[in-house]
Amino acid sequence: MVSTLKKVTGSNITLPKGFSAAGINCGIKYKKKDLGIILSEKPAAAAAVYTTNKIKAAPLAVTKESIETEGILQAVIVNSGNANAFTGTQGTLDAYAMRSQVSEVFGLSEHYVGVASTGIIGETMPIDTILEGIGKLHPQSRLENALEFSQAILTTDTNTKNACYSFQVGEKEVVLAGTAKGSGMIHPNMATMLSFMTTDANISSENLHYALRKVTDLSFNCITVDGETSTNDMVLVMANGCAGNEELTPQHPDWGTFLQALTLTSTDLAKSIARDGEGATKLIEVTVDGAASDEEARIAAKSIVGSPLVKTAVFGCDPNWGRIVAVLGYANVEIVPEQIDLSIGDFPVLLSSGILPFDEEGISSYLSSSDISITVNLHAGNGKGKAWGCDLTYDYIQINSSYTT
Amino acid sequence: MVSTLKKVTGSNITLPKGFSAAGINCGIKYKKKDLGIILSEKPAAAAAVYTTNKIKAAPLAVTKESIETEGILQAVIVNSGNANAFTGTQGTLDAYAMRSQVSEVFGLSEHYVGVASTGIIGETMPIDTILEGIGKLHPQSRLENALEFSQAILTTDTNTKNACYSFQVGEKEVVLAGTAKGSGMIHPNMATMLSFMTTDANISSENLHYALRKVTDLSFNCITVDGETSTNDMVLVMANGCAGNEELTPQHPDWGTFLQALTLTSTDLAKSIARDGEGATKLIEVTVDGAASDEEARIAAKSIVGSPLVKTAVFGCDPNWGRIVAVLGYANVEIVPEQIDLSIGDFPVLLSSGILPFDEEGISSYLSSSDISITVNLHAGNGKGKAWGCDLTYDYIQINSSYTT
Repeated sequence: MVSTLKKVTGSNITLPKGFSAAGINCGIKYKKKDLGIILSEKPAAAAAVYTTNKIKAAPLAVTKESIETEGILQAVIVNSGNANAFTGTQGTLDAYAMRSQVSEVFGLSEHYVGVASTGIIGETMPIDTILEGIGKLHPQSRLENALEFSQAILTTDTNTKNACYSFQVGEKEVVLAGTAKGSGMIHPNMATMLSFMTTDANISSENLHYALRKVTDLSFNCITVDGETSTNDMVLVMANGCAGNEELTPQHPDWGTFLQALTLTSTDLAKSIARDGEGATKLIEVTVDGAASDEEARIAAKSIVGSPLVKTAVFGCDPNWGRIVAVLGYANVEIVPEQIDLSIGDFPVLLSSGILPFDEEGISSYLSSSDISITVNLHAGNGKGKAWGCDLTYDYIQINSSYTT
Repeated sequence: MVSTLKKVTGSNITLPKGFSAAGINCGIKYKKKDLGIILSEKPAAAAAVYTTNKIKAAPLAVTKESIETEGILQAVIVNSGNANAFTGTQGTLDAYAMRSQVSEVFGLSEHYVGVASTGIIGETMPIDTILEGIGKLHPQSRLENALEFSQAILTTDTNTKNACYSFQVGEKEVVLAGTAKGSGMIHPNMATMLSFMTTDANISSENLHYALRKVTDLSFNCITVDGETSTNDMVLVMANGCAGNEELTPQHPDWGTFLQALTLTSTDLAKSIARDGEGATKLIEVTVDGAASDEEARIAAKSIVGSPLVKTAVFGCDPNWGRIVAVLGYANVEIVPEQIDLSIGDFPVLLSSGILPFDEEGISSYLSSSDISITVNLHAGNGKGKAWGCDLTYDYIQINSSYTT
C-alpha cells in the first residue's frame, strides 16, 4: 500500500477543518503578543500530557480537570509572560477565572476549555488584564491568525514553530497540524514547552491519548536544551472529526498512517524547539544503535546531547570526541567499553573503541554547519533511539543571567 | 574534652612528617608543570576512591592493583595534560611503564607506586617524555616542592588547592594535608578531580579506606561544576605512621577527631574546586534541611547547585527564586509543594511556600558577592545535607569551546 502521508506547506493550526485561532498583546508583556486561543467549531476529542515536575503550574490541573470530565475540549486559552506557577491558591483561582471567561465569551461549557501558561515563575497573574484580553480575541481560520497564536505562546523563542501533515483515511483527507514554544528549560520529560496540535480526524479521546503518549516518548521527550524540566509543560491535541473519516482506532487499516503523521508533526516541532534552544546556533541529532533496549538508547542519546562539554565543543567546532565517550561512561546504560563505534557526521571516529585515522580539519569544518549528527553503536543489544539538542553558547548565559530583571 | 583540631597555615602535603614532593614540566605541556610525585620515606597505608564512570582511565586500574596488593603505597606519580583515558591496550602499558619507572628510579616495589593522570581523553601518552621526566623528579620536604606538585596536577584550574589540619592522638601531634585539582567536568560522584592527601597518622589501610569513603560522600561527592563525571577521578590518601601515635581505629577515643580532620580537609578542597570551577566567579553553597533522608537532602542540594538556570541567575545577580523551586520539583526527592521554606543568604524568600515581602535590590546586591548561600527546608523529614557549586558564565563557554584545538 502506498502511503498517503504528505507534508503540508504553509503549515498552521487552522489548516485542519473547523479550527480557528487568534493571538494578541493583552498587556502582560509590553508589546509582544501574550494571549492566544484555539477554537474548534464543534466539541473535539482531547488528550494531553503534562510535565513530570512535582511543582505543577495551576493551569495544568484546570486543563486536566476539563479533559477528564468528558474527554472533550472546544477551546484552549494560552498566555505567555507569566507561568502562573508557584502562585498558591490565587494562581488556581486565576486559572479557573481564565477558563470561566472563555466559557462566557465564546458560549462554551466550562469543561470544554483548556488553560495553559508560560513565563516567569512565582509572580501573581495580572488577571484583570488577561480577562479583559480574552474579550478581545477574535479567532479566525486564516494563516495570519494561526501565526498570531503561534507568536502569542512564545517566551525567549526566536521564531514560531509549526508543522502540518495530511493523509487519507479511506476516501477522506485528514489534516494534522501543530504549533509549539520552547527555548530554555527544555528537558525530557517535557520541558518549558507547550505544544498544541489540531486535527480534523474522527477519533476517540482514549485512542488519541494512547497515541499521544506513545509519540511523545519518541519526540518531545527526546529533546533537551539545558537539563531543566519546567513546571508548565503540556502537549495537547484536539481532534474535532470535521474530516468526516471513519473513526480511527488501533484496528483501523489507516491507524499506522495516523501514528506516523502524529510522530512526524511532533518530531518536527521537537526538533524546531531544540534548534531554537536558548542561545543555540546548531541542532544536534544523536542516534544510538546497539543499546540494551530502545529506552537505554534514548537515555544514552539524551545524555550525549545534554552534556555541557559536548554542547560547548560543538559550539566551538572542536572535534573533542573523548567527551562523548566520557558521557557514555556515566550515562547509566549498558556499554561494552571495548566495543564502541562513533561517527561525527560522515566521519568515522571510533570502530570497536579503536581510534580511526582522524580528519581533524574535516570534522571541525563539518561542526561549523547548522545541523550536526552524532552516531553511536554500543554493541550491547538491539535498542535504537534518537535525541535532539543544541549547542551551549555565550548567548545562553546572556539570556539566562538576566531573565527577571 | 576540648578538641585539639587546628587548621594549619601554609598548608602543603609535605607538612605531615616523612613526605616529600616534586613537580616539573617534563614536556607534555608546552611550559606549565605537568608531572609530579609524592614520596613517603617509608611505606604508607593507602586508600583510594575512584570515578563511577564506566569508562575508566588506565592509571586507575594500575593504582587499584597496587593498593589491593598490600594496602600500601610509598609514592604516587601524577601527570597532567593527557588523561590516558580511552587509549586501549597502549594506555594500560603506558600506565604500567610509569609505575615501573618510579619503582626503578626510587627503588620501590612496583606495587608501592600509584599512578594518576588528567587532561585530554583519547590521545596516546607521550610516554618516552614522561619516563624521562620521572628521572628528573627530586622530591623534597619543602613548601616550594609541595606547591610545585600542586601545580603539576592542574589542567584548566586557575589556582592550586591545598588544605591542612593537625590534631592530637594521645600525646602525639598528627598532621593531615591534601592537595587537589578540579575545574570542569566536576560532578558527583567524583569529577575530573584528583585529590591526594598525606598524613603521618598511624592507621591501617582498612580503617583509612572506611574513613575515606564516609568522608568522600560528604565532601568531594557533594560538588558539581557542570554535571559531568570524568573518566579519571581519584581521591587517594597515604598514612605513613611517622607521627608515632597509637594506632587509630574506630574504637580509639581520638577517632572522631581524625574523621573531623579528614572531613575538613576534604571539604576545604572540595569547596576550592567548586569555587575554581571553569569560568566561575562565585562559590554557591546550598543547604537543605527537612528532607526525607540525608541522602535526599544531598540530592536536592546537588540538583539546585547543578541547575544551569540557577547558576546563570547567580552569575547575573538575578533573584529568580522560581528556578530553585522548579529544580526541587524535578529533583526526584520527596517534597511537600505547599511547605517549602527558602532563603537566599539572610533574605527569607518563601515560608511554607508563601512568598514573603521581597527585597529584590537587597538580594541582587547579595548575589554580587563571591560566596552565595541558598537554604531550603523541605519539611518532609529530618534529613540534612549540603552541596557546593559555582555560577555558569561566559568563560565556561569560552574555556570549553576550544579545549583540544
